[in-house]
Amino acid sequence: MKIVTDPDKMKTYAKIIKKENKLIGFIPTMGYFHEGHTSLIKTARKQSDIVIVSVFVNPIQFGVNEDFDSYPRDTARDEELARACGVDAFFCPKKEDMYPEDYSTYVDVEGLTSGLCGKSRPGHFRGVTTVVAKLFNIVRPDIAYFGQKDAQQAFVIKRMVEDLNMGITLKILPTVREKGGLAMSSRNIYLKGSERKDAAILYSSLKLAEELISSGERDAKKIIKKMRELISTVPAVSKIEYISIVDTGFLKDVAIIGGEVLIALAARVGRTRLIDNVILNVKSEKPENDHDRP
Amino acid sequence: MKIVTDPDKMKTYAKIIKKENKLIGFIPTMGYFHEGHTSLIKTARKQSDIVIVSVFVNPIQFGVNEDFDSYPRDTARDEELARACGVDAFFCPKKEDMYPEDYSTYVDVEGLTSGLCGKSRPGHFRGVTTVVAKLFNIVRPDIAYFGQKDAQQAFVIKRMVEDLNMGITLKILPTVREKGGLAMSSRNIYLKGSERKDAAILYSSLKLAEELISSGERDAKKIIKKMRELISTVPAVSKIEYISIVDTGFLKDVAIIGGEVLIALAARVGRTRLIDNVILNVKSEKPENDHDRP
Repeated sequence: MKIVTDPDKMKTYAKIIKKENKLIGFIPTMGYFHEGHTSLIKTARKQSDIVIVSVFVNPIQFGVNEDFDSYPRDTARDEELARACGVDAFFCPKKEDMYPEDYSTYVDVEGLTSGLCGKSRPGHFRGVTTVVAKLFNIVRPDIAYFGQKDAQQAFVIKRMVEDLNMGITLKILPTVREKGGLAMSSRNIYLKGSERKDAAILYSSLKLAEELISSGERDAKKIIKKMRELISTVPAVSKIEYISIVDTGFLKDVAIIGGEVLIALAARVGRTRLIDNVILNVKSEKPENDHDRP
Repeated sequence: MKIVTDPDKMKTYAKIIKKENKLIGFIPTMGYFHEGHTSLIKTARKQSDIVIVSVFVNPIQFGVNEDFDSYPRDTARDEELARACGVDAFFCPKKEDMYPEDYSTYVDVEGLTSGLCGKSRPGHFRGVTTVVAKLFNIVRPDIAYFGQKDAQQAFVIKRMVEDLNMGITLKILPTVREKGGLAMSSRNIYLKGSERKDAAILYSSLKLAEELISSGERDAKKIIKKMRELISTVPAVSKIEYISIVDTGFLKDVAIIGGEVLIALAARVGRTRLIDNVILNVKSEKPENDHDRP
């Protein structure tokens, strides 16, 4: 496995690969790998000639009061795991090479970034789209892999790729979960003691929403209320930042559920901010009306 | 010469060219060709295997009160000229294909876009960098050609290309001028009667600045004052929007001229907004001080 830190060298490597007409599969990450990451890498390994993984904790996607400094890092372990998964090139650029002193260019996706996590993390998605645009230009992938756990991120990057004519195929793979249902996340390492078990309530609330919808409920407000009630039974959840049911086109709140919807939430378990979501394809059902029946 | 309107087809064409390891030279334009454009095309013809020219009057770089609707267009003539210059592919996308209804992604270069034309045309450079990013992704050029006449644009695009790791070589070619010195521009067609002759005063003022600097003047304010005085002798110049002397690193005003400077101006001749500039490399000269002499 090739280990590259210099963006120019990575670019040259990718250019050579492209000249050989090989398919590049790319997994951009912030490192501290869990099974979510390795599942992306393993899928890329099956689908591409050359697999490139990047590990870069991107400073510009963290707000001033967020956890950039404490974000977990273990590049040596990430390298080992990448090698074990058959990665061809491991790209771990330095902050100062990605953002030199006079750095001034940003990529913005409007609309899709205004709600959900974008609301509580202003500038976050601007940081994400900017670094992903840079990484895509450096690595020149044919296919790029992202996890469903960061659902809004996936929608935003998909829009950027289409709008800017990047011509990259995006594959969004299912969230990998721990046994209790907790979505795997590098930030789970922050959870202390019983918090990890308590955090499973977030996924349980999503399952509850799914059940309610299966049994005919279509009123988003009612579903969200029941999800909140369930989550509030676990005192370790110190704050629900949002629970939203949105359409998957514009990520706008829906009142009556129908078609494809994203049910997404963010909450703090202790001091740790966690997110989770499910996407459901819901048959629009007309409310029953006895008067119309024969 | 291949004529392409569909961005996806253009992308496919460029992809095939790249697989043949041929060098693509690209000239993005808003059409209505003059000798400035053909000089870029002819240079690209000498330096590249495949020359691609785009003609697209980019709506998002025009302000609401600007001349998007009246901007001169003559695609048939542009096509003819392109063919005569040996262009391989002529790309003229439609507005609705470049910006579909749910279009939401924008590329911003901060800092460099705040002064000069950026000050009087808010959003202009955002429109430019966005469309150029799109065109670069569609055409995948190795070299892209721009005219020195739009000096700030060239600096801004250079920064975007570096910041976003686009890996494209930019060539900025000298401004082509009419006999009297007026910089060639598609907008010169707006000039009525004697305005074309009158507009030459703008370049004369730049030449005056050059002469003043040659004869030892280093005070930017004094030079700008003399330029203004000269321009004000021509009543057809209805408004001087700005005359600025800036460094070529950050495009910030300099007080005492030294090193490489851009002297740039925008003015209205009648109702037509025109821009022009020169770049000078000025030896820093210490002001003479008789007391220190032996």
